[in-house]
Amino acid sequence: MGRGRSPRRAGERLGMSPGRLEAFSDGVFAIAITLLVLDLQVPDPTEGNLAAALGDQWPSFVAYAVSFLTIGIIWINHHAMIRRLKAVDHGMLVLNLLLLLFVALLPFTTALMAAYLRESSGEHLAAGIYSGSCLLMGLAFAVTNRYALIVRPGLLATPVSDARRRAILNRAIAGLVPYATATALAVVSPYVSVGICAAVALYYALPFAVGGQDPTAAST
Amino acid sequence: MGRGRSPRRAGERLGMSPGRLEAFSDGVFAIAITLLVLDLQVPDPTEGNLAAALGDQWPSFVAYAVSFLTIGIIWINHHAMIRRLKAVDHGMLVLNLLLLLFVALLPFTTALMAAYLRESSGEHLAAGIYSGSCLLMGLAFAVTNRYALIVRPGLLATPVSDARRRAILNRAIAGLVPYATATALAVVSPYVSVGICAAVALYYALPFAVGGQDPTAAST
Amino acid sequence: MGRGRSPRRAGERLGMSPGRLEAFSDGVFAIAITLLVLDLQVPDPTEGNLAAALGDQWPSFVAYAVSFLTIGIIWINHHAMIRRLKAVDHGMLVLNLLLLLFVALLPFTTALMAAYLRESSGEHLAAGIYSGSCLLMGLAFAVTNRYALIVRPGLLATPVSDARRRAILNRAIAGLVPYATATALAVVSPYVSVGICAAVALYYALPFAVGGQDPTAAST
Amino acid sequence: MGRGRSPRRAGERLGMSPGRLEAFSDGVFAIAITLLVLDLQVPDPTEGNLAAALGDQWPSFVAYAVSFLTIGIIWINHHAMIRRLKAVDHGMLVLNLLLLLFVALLPFTTALMAAYLRESSGEHLAAGIYSGSCLLMGLAFAVTNRYALIVRPGLLATPVSDARRRAILNRAIAGLVPYATATALAVVSPYVSVGICAAVALYYALPFAVGGQDPTAAST
Repeated sequence: MGRGRSPRRAGERLGMSPGRLEAFSDGVFAIAITLLVLDLQVPDPTEGNLAAALGDQWPSFVAYAVSFLTIGIIWINHHAMIRRLKAVDHGMLVLNLLLLLFVALLPFTTALMAAYLRESSGEHLAAGIYSGSCLLMGLAFAVTNRYALIVRPGLLATPVSDARRRAILNRAIAGLVPYATATALAVVSPYVSVGICAAVALYYALPFAVGGQDPTAAST
Repeated sequence: MGRGRSPRRAGERLGMSPGRLEAFSDGVFAIAITLLVLDLQVPDPTEGNLAAALGDQWPSFVAYAVSFLTIGIIWINHHAMIRRLKAVDHGMLVLNLLLLLFVALLPFTTALMAAYLRESSGEHLAAGIYSGSCLLMGLAFAVTNRYALIVRPGLLATPVSDARRRAILNRAIAGLVPYATATALAVVSPYVSVGICAAVALYYALPFAVGGQDPTAAST
Repeated sequence: MGRGRSPRRAGERLGMSPGRLEAFSDGVFAIAITLLVLDLQVPDPTEGNLAAALGDQWPSFVAYAVSFLTIGIIWINHHAMIRRLKAVDHGMLVLNLLLLLFVALLPFTTALMAAYLRESSGEHLAAGIYSGSCLLMGLAFAVTNRYALIVRPGLLATPVSDARRRAILNRAIAGLVPYATATALAVVSPYVSVGICAAVALYYALPFAVGGQDPTAAST
Repeated sequence: MGRGRSPRRAGERLGMSPGRLEAFSDGVFAIAITLLVLDLQVPDPTEGNLAAALGDQWPSFVAYAVSFLTIGIIWINHHAMIRRLKAVDHGMLVLNLLLLLFVALLPFTTALMAAYLRESSGEHLAAGIYSGSCLLMGLAFAVTNRYALIVRPGLLATPVSDARRRAILNRAIAGLVPYATATALAVVSPYVSVGICAAVALYYALPFAVGGQDPTAAST
C-alpha cells in the first residue's frame, strides 16, 4: 500500500504515507457504515404482529438508509481529499482522527434519532443531535481539507491553483449550510430536520447514478 | 493499493482507483460476514438445559451458515466485477454503495428470519424479507455490473466482446430467479423459501470445492 | 494490492490474486479477534461489589486471552499458507471461506464456554463446543492447506518438494491432536478441555517470543 | 501490499512482510476505535427527559473521546514503529499480538470506567482498571519497540544509531509515567486518574494540530 520507493521516502520524512492513512480511514468508514445495521431491532416473536412491529420501526429503516448514504458520500469525498496528497504530517493525522471520531459517532446519533423521531418528548433534541453530528462531521472534513490545501500546501502531490483551492473549500463549506439549517430547524420540526439530511444524501448520490454526469465532478 | 503510475492517472480523471473501491467494499463484506455471529445467542445458564436451548436455536445456526456462504459468494463475484475495471466513476461508486447497503443489511434480515422461522405468526413475512433482501442484493449487483459493462464501457480495463458482456449479465440475472422464487414462495412456506436460498449458496460453493472444475468459470 | 502486472495476469486466469484473498481474510481475522471484547460484561453498578463481580467473570477474561491468541496464531499460519501461492482458484476460495466461517464463530463459542465453565449444568457441552470449534477451525485450515499443496500444486508460487509438503501438512494435522483430545476430554472436565486449548495457544506464542528461535520456523 | 519483489523476498526468509503485519494491525485499531461507539446508550424514550438522560451519560461521552484519541495516537506510533522494519519474525508477531490484545480490550475498560466514574462504589477500581489498561497497552508497545530496536536489530530497514534507539525507547518509556501515575492515583480519585489519561491524549494530539511543529517529530 504505497510502499513503493518514492512515496515511502516521502513518508519517511513527513510522518506517514497517504495510502496508509487512507487504508486506516477506510477501515473506520467501512466499520461505521456496517455497524449501522445494529440499530435495527428484531421484534420479539412473542409480542404481536411482525408487520406492525416492523412498520413501527420505519424511522430506523429510513435512518439506516440516510446514514449509510451519508457515510458513503463522506467516504468518497475523503478519498478525493487524500488523493491530492503526497504525504501527511502529524497535524493532518490528528485532524483526520477528529473527522473519524464524528464518523464513528454516527451509528449512535442515528439510533438516537430513530428512537425518538415519533416521540412526543425529546424528538427535537434527538433530531438536532443527529443533524448536528452530520454538521460536525462536515465541519471536521472542511477543516482537514483546509489544512491540506492552505496550511500545509507542501503536502500536495501536485500544485493546486489558488482558484481551484478556493473552489474545493467553498464546496466543502457550502455542504455545511444544509446541515446547519437542519440542526437549527430541529427546534421547529424533527421531520424537517431529518428530511434535509436525507435530501443532502440523495442529492449527492442520485443525479450521478442516473448517468450522463461528468464523472470527474464528484472527485474534487 | 493501485497507486502505481498508470492506474493512479486513470483514477485522477475518473474518480477513484478500482483497488480503493475494492478495499473499502471488502471491508464492508468482511464486517457484515463477521457480524453474523452476533445473531447467535448464548443461552442463559440459569434456565434449564443447554443442549435443548441450543437445539431450539438451530434456525440461527443454519441461517449463520447460509448467510455466511451467501455473502462470501457475492464477495467472490464482486471481485470478478471490479477486476474488469481500470477506473470507476461516481455512478459506479453510488451503485456499489447501494449494493453494500443490502450486504450490510443481511445480518439483520438473517436474525429476523431465524427468530421467526418456527413461529406460528410472522414466519412468512420474515422468510420473505430474508429472501427478498438476498434478491435486492443480487439485483443491486446485476445493476452495478450492467453499469460497468453497458452504460460505461470506458471503465473496462480491456475491451469485452458483446457476446461476453451478454453472457456475464445473463448469468447475473439468472442468479436472481431462485431468489425471486424464494421470495414469492415465502407466502406458501418459510422453509421452502429459506431452503432455496440455502440451495443457491451450496450450489455456488460445493461443486467447485470438490474439484475438477474449470477454475476460470467462477471468476466471470 | 498485488495489482502488479504478473500476479494480475495470473489472477486473470485463475480467479483471484492471493493478495486480495489475504486482505479479505485478514479483515475477518481482525474483526473476529476484536469482537471477542464484546463478550466481556460491565457489571451493573447498582448491584453490589465491582471487584467481586469482575472476579466472578474470570472465565471470560481467560477465554478472551486464549481465543485472542488462538485467532492470532491461525492468522499467522494463514499468512504463511497464502504466501506460498501465486494464484487462487474457486475451490481455494470456498475452502478458505469455510475456514473463515469457523474463525468468525469463535466469539460465540468463546462466550458460550465462558458463561458455562463454572456452572453445574451444561459445562461439559459448552467446553466441548469450544474446543470442538477450535478443532473444526484447525481442520478447515488443514484441508485448505492440503488443497493448495496436493490437489492444486499449480497454484504454488514456487515448486515445493514432496518432503516439504508432507512436513507442512503433518504439522497442520499434528496441531489437530490437542484440540481433538480437548474436545474428547470435555466429557471428563471442562477445565481440562479449556486448559488444553490455552496450552496450545501459549505453546505457539511463548517460546518464540522469548527469542533465540529460528525466525523462519514459524512461517512454514 | 508490499508484494513487490524485494520486500517479498525478505518476508520469505523472515516470516511476514511489515506491510502485512501493519494492515492486520490497522484493522484491529480501526475496529477497536469504532466499537467504542457501542458504549454509548440510547436512553429509553419511555423514561423521562432525554436531555437529562444524555447529561447523566456525560462520562461516556468524555470516555469515548479520550479513548478514541488514545487509540488514534497509539496507531500513529505503531505506524512509525513498523515503518522502520524491513521484515518481522515470530517474536515480533507475538509481541504485536499482545499489544493488539490490550488495544482491543479498551472498549471494555472504557465502558467500565464510564459506568462507574460517578458511583460511590467501585469507582476507584474502575478508574484504576482503565488507566491500568492504558498502561499495559503502552508497556506492550514499549516492549515490542524494544524487541525491534535492540533484540532483533536485523529486522530494521536501515541501521539506526545507538543514540537514536535509546532516544526512541526513552520516549516510549517516558510515555508510561503518566499512565502509571494515573493508575496509582485511582485509589485517591477516579477523576484525577481519568483526567491524566485525557491530558496524555490531548498532549499528543493538540499541539501538533495547531501547526508550526516539526512534522517529523511525531513519527519517531
